[in-house]
Amino acid sequence: MGVFFMIKFLNDYSEGAHPLILQRLAETNLDQQSGYGTDSYSEAARQYIRSAMKRPDADVYFVSGGTQANLLVIAALLKPFESVIAVESGHINTHETGAIEATGHKIEYVLGKEGKLTPELIAPVLVKSPKYHTVKPRMVYISNTTELGTVYSKAELQALSEYCKANDLLLFMDGARLAMALASKFNDLTLEDIASYCDVFYIGGTKNGALLGEAVVLLNPIFKEEFPYHIKQRGALMAKGRLLGIQFETLFQNELWLELAKHANSLAEEIADCCESLGFKFLTLPQSNQIFPILPANVRSELHKKYDFFDWQPIDDDRCAIRVVTSWATSKADVTSFIQDLCTLQKK
Amino acid sequence: MGVFFMIKFLNDYSEGAHPLILQRLAETNLDQQSGYGTDSYSEAARQYIRSAMKRPDADVYFVSGGTQANLLVIAALLKPFESVIAVESGHINTHETGAIEATGHKIEYVLGKEGKLTPELIAPVLVKSPKYHTVKPRMVYISNTTELGTVYSKAELQALSEYCKANDLLLFMDGARLAMALASKFNDLTLEDIASYCDVFYIGGTKNGALLGEAVVLLNPIFKEEFPYHIKQRGALMAKGRLLGIQFETLFQNELWLELAKHANSLAEEIADCCESLGFKFLTLPQSNQIFPILPANVRSELHKKYDFFDWQPIDDDRCAIRVVTSWATSKADVTSFIQDLCTLQKK
Amino acid sequence: MGVFFMIKFLNDYSEGAHPLILQRLAETNLDQQSGYGTDSYSEAARQYIRSAMKRPDADVYFVSGGTQANLLVIAALLKPFESVIAVESGHINTHETGAIEATGHKIEYVLGKEGKLTPELIAPVLVKSPKYHTVKPRMVYISNTTELGTVYSKAELQALSEYCKANDLLLFMDGARLAMALASKFNDLTLEDIASYCDVFYIGGTKNGALLGEAVVLLNPIFKEEFPYHIKQRGALMAKGRLLGIQFETLFQNELWLELAKHANSLAEEIADCCESLGFKFLTLPQSNQIFPILPANVRSELHKKYDFFDWQPIDDDRCAIRVVTSWATSKADVTSFIQDLCTLQKK
Amino acid sequence: MGVFFMIKFLNDYSEGAHPLILQRLAETNLDQQSGYGTDSYSEAARQYIRSAMKRPDADVYFVSGGTQANLLVIAALLKPFESVIAVESGHINTHETGAIEATGHKIEYVLGKEGKLTPELIAPVLVKSPKYHTVKPRMVYISNTTELGTVYSKAELQALSEYCKANDLLLFMDGARLAMALASKFNDLTLEDIASYCDVFYIGGTKNGALLGEAVVLLNPIFKEEFPYHIKQRGALMAKGRLLGIQFETLFQNELWLELAKHANSLAEEIADCCESLGFKFLTLPQSNQIFPILPANVRSELHKKYDFFDWQPIDDDRCAIRVVTSWATSKADVTSFIQDLCTLQKK
Repeated sequence: MGVFFMIKFLNDYSEGAHPLILQRLAETNLDQQSGYGTDSYSEAARQYIRSAMKRPDADVYFVSGGTQANLLVIAALLKPFESVIAVESGHINTHETGAIEATGHKIEYVLGKEGKLTPELIAPVLVKSPKYHTVKPRMVYISNTTELGTVYSKAELQALSEYCKANDLLLFMDGARLAMALASKFNDLTLEDIASYCDVFYIGGTKNGALLGEAVVLLNPIFKEEFPYHIKQRGALMAKGRLLGIQFETLFQNELWLELAKHANSLAEEIADCCESLGFKFLTLPQSNQIFPILPANVRSELHKKYDFFDWQPIDDDRCAIRVVTSWATSKADVTSFIQDLCTLQKK
Repeated sequence: MGVFFMIKFLNDYSEGAHPLILQRLAETNLDQQSGYGTDSYSEAARQYIRSAMKRPDADVYFVSGGTQANLLVIAALLKPFESVIAVESGHINTHETGAIEATGHKIEYVLGKEGKLTPELIAPVLVKSPKYHTVKPRMVYISNTTELGTVYSKAELQALSEYCKANDLLLFMDGARLAMALASKFNDLTLEDIASYCDVFYIGGTKNGALLGEAVVLLNPIFKEEFPYHIKQRGALMAKGRLLGIQFETLFQNELWLELAKHANSLAEEIADCCESLGFKFLTLPQSNQIFPILPANVRSELHKKYDFFDWQPIDDDRCAIRVVTSWATSKADVTSFIQDLCTLQKK
Repeated sequence: MGVFFMIKFLNDYSEGAHPLILQRLAETNLDQQSGYGTDSYSEAARQYIRSAMKRPDADVYFVSGGTQANLLVIAALLKPFESVIAVESGHINTHETGAIEATGHKIEYVLGKEGKLTPELIAPVLVKSPKYHTVKPRMVYISNTTELGTVYSKAELQALSEYCKANDLLLFMDGARLAMALASKFNDLTLEDIASYCDVFYIGGTKNGALLGEAVVLLNPIFKEEFPYHIKQRGALMAKGRLLGIQFETLFQNELWLELAKHANSLAEEIADCCESLGFKFLTLPQSNQIFPILPANVRSELHKKYDFFDWQPIDDDRCAIRVVTSWATSKADVTSFIQDLCTLQKK
Repeated sequence: MGVFFMIKFLNDYSEGAHPLILQRLAETNLDQQSGYGTDSYSEAARQYIRSAMKRPDADVYFVSGGTQANLLVIAALLKPFESVIAVESGHINTHETGAIEATGHKIEYVLGKEGKLTPELIAPVLVKSPKYHTVKPRMVYISNTTELGTVYSKAELQALSEYCKANDLLLFMDGARLAMALASKFNDLTLEDIASYCDVFYIGGTKNGALLGEAVVLLNPIFKEEFPYHIKQRGALMAKGRLLGIQFETLFQNELWLELAKHANSLAEEIADCCESLGFKFLTLPQSNQIFPILPANVRSELHKKYDFFDWQPIDDDRCAIRVVTSWATSKADVTSFIQDLCTLQKK
């Protein structure tokens, strides 16, 4: 008898990297390059990203992970007395060990709708008095896909962007799973749209087939001159920047990044469709590679014997929303197995 | 005619990774692992490091780079009013964009001797009055090898360690180039010694054949429980911790890390011997893979046509100390070429 | 015709100091004293406060104001990754320009009941996962009186204190208006109780007849050794500490501080009784020198012609809760005038 | 037998306030005023200060003490990666418990000349490479009088100011003892000069007859809009701002502040003249109310029996520079006594 391994639907970073990335790392390995992101691969990756959004003016920086990108962007763009507005479920508010506050900034959090912010939710936060006695809201932080797997529509993002401009707020999109957002069948945004609506955003590599890395895209020109100082000061400047450049160059060649995300989304959709056909509800709309079906206890406990996933949020005494995550590396076979087991369990 | 490339003696991070590392990444690529450093490769790497220093009690954490390791350790171990003492040439004092101060801590810097600290240099910093009106010195930061290429002897480190213990100071060794220190022919320290003399230190991977990564070793038990919170808060916790674990596992198998450092050191020694035989002086003793020969302007300018290296520090109107760095990836041929050109130039 | 002055019910810091304080400052003026709180007046004040709570072991420090006391205590007692829990209406969360976050700490805020926290409100905040990825709640911040004029009962404070101890949370009471709380007819707490239930609290002078000053009382012994460093580092150590010592010595002689608070409370009670008799509701129970009657627009606009007070919170299209504040310096005549005008307006 | 009191030459904050200040506090005590520095006294004080420097455009803010003023100004004017340059003996570098670093900024300190900075001392600090890897020097901090009792000449300040402008550096003068500088017989600067040479400075009240208070004068327009947020965030905004306004109004009426400083300086000069006539040397030139004569051990130990002063810095085995400080409150009689005792001792 062999060792038994659980099949993981826990997250989208359980494996290494897409094979093309490893191959490219090997091919370029002994090429001598200058450090700290000034290598030719990083430059090529920047050009790919600029072309993809038709913004030759954009500054692009590669950093190692999402929390690092978030704290870096927020600390670099805000003055000490300025705050950032987010949904309560926002990653910066829940799962970054206070990284934003550690840089000195208040997160003003409000309950979101489907994990999303709207101008209506932001408006009350802007009512402040007396002047100087309160923080000054200056940035809106959103995630796309959200932490609850939903995606922003073009109309929603446009409304947020216009509201931000009208209220002197910067709009920052956490794109740790931006590929999955753009690859979602519910999406009607282009990368070009995002670049025009946001002051800054990033494109996640870690959760989409890279070993590590997020590409921070800075559109608003007033922060460009100073941003590299912040990167170094926060310990986010990698000596071998080539490692990040090579990966993003590979991901953007032939739109590999979107292809990987489509794979992840389509497998999640299969599971979602199955859940729906079996009569299960969802915590939020299933729109990307993270879905949150609500399952009764007996079904959950049986599934847990064979599959790894998070029990996300209790709904009532019996039911709990679970989080199922697929990725570029998830196999069709594992998804088929999950669906079959789910159908069997529900029919009991 | 082809493109002409300069031969780089600029630093020890111009190439990718040692081929065994790339090979191991490929082999393990699709193995599903849990995230954030809880994977089996990271655990294996920790065991290798614990064994190498005979300290099964040590906590080992992998982070992406040197500045990140430095700010993380210092911010985690010091209270807000505590300071860290360093030599003026210390990396934290010169080339980290104020990363330490950005975490709230003062660096009290003094002129070093050969890039090194001694109890005599520290003593005046400890004279403070009145109480509560000054920072409280609490940590001594040293680098081994130093930023000037020198290494600490066992007697020197022991003296510092005893002085620190007697004065309630924590001793922290920046080991971005620790392998080169241990592999130096001037070294008489073991990894075990270092673990017994320091409260915390790290073992550099980035400059010794890894794609990225430093292994932070925490010996002092009072900080262990809390350290992981700091790692996450500083954005230093990598989702795919396996990337760091696999690399350190590979580096510590069959003492690859020391072998790579010996290669780097021996090539630097060849250049140093040549310089000495030609009558050139050095800024500091050539003891590792960074050497600082003092060359006249005409020699420097000729060398610069073919080789990349830093002009480090002017000595007089004509002469300047240059920094020549070799690495695990430096070829014997490039070193031979450099030596031949240097001999030719000096004879003119 | 002379200049017309509005009668102020805006706050409790519109005047200078109680005359006994000015007299005492004059009497002691040329006495030479050592600086930074080591003077004999500060020592006498500390003894008065220790006696009043029967806690000779307590450390007492005087600082200039409430925001300073709050940021100082929280920054001194929390580690970088630890958070403080507060009601959304808490002063640290609303009116301190992000002072707490500027020291690096997250405020986790929840909706309060009558401006107060309870164990039930805290409990959900303590549910965190995964470990290390979230802040670690470590302190509970309450205000007494609250920002909404209510007071904690002994049973409420005891329940909070026991809950905090059981969950390894520090309990910190912002006592900017502690005198008014203790002097409230709804109060059943003694200063001794407060000292036994809290790890740290402060006694406000600024809003109770002093020119400035809050007395921070540190009970929990583990922070005592280090607290003075924090005071100096935050710019909160006054060279002429005597100024604070003399005032608190005067306030604690013959319980002047409680006498002043009783005066303020009783005048607010008169206004509250009048409001109640006229059929007006309140935003929160009127229990101290800050009351929040809900008045229709026509009454409010008439009152605003003669009196200064804040329109606090709209209730519906017509009605708004106003904040009326009395103080040690409020005259019976001004209160009588306000009541008469209110009765006249309501009868129209 | 009565109690014996030491005569204090320890500092310039051993007494309360100038009697006119206490009188004015009493006269205005029950006048109702708005809070947080918006009272009419603060406005009057601001007008006095603006007039005295002929700068109606200047913003003036009152805060409680010197460390608070320093950390506030530096944190408000610098971006996270910018540093401040100071002499090693600068107050921010030595006696503020790391307050500046606690706001995230590096102090780059150099050995001063007579406690002063010069362009020549600053120049080497500006040599930085590589870009982004080092802090960016952005402010020069000087004290006038210096921590060693010396004063800047007009030529010296002008040279610094021009150098700063040429190098994009802000010039900040810590004027905790600015009155003593302007009242020094070695001074050739006017307040108007200082306002034209500096971007920001402050005028000390605490050490010149006020109970507390420093007037921060902001000339550079780019920081004005935001400064009040910083004041509140740092806990430096006093509810009863009137207390500071009344004091500065009084100090600036009839140039009381300069009169008090002249008194202090002239008494120090008497002691300095005596020392000189007795053949004693000085650590630095005696130019203000702080002087540093170098005395042999036997003289020092005899003087210590009757007078309080600091032993500042050992010169050799026998001699030590002491610090003698006079103030607005120092009596002629005490100075005469000190001089007589010194003459007697020296003649032995």
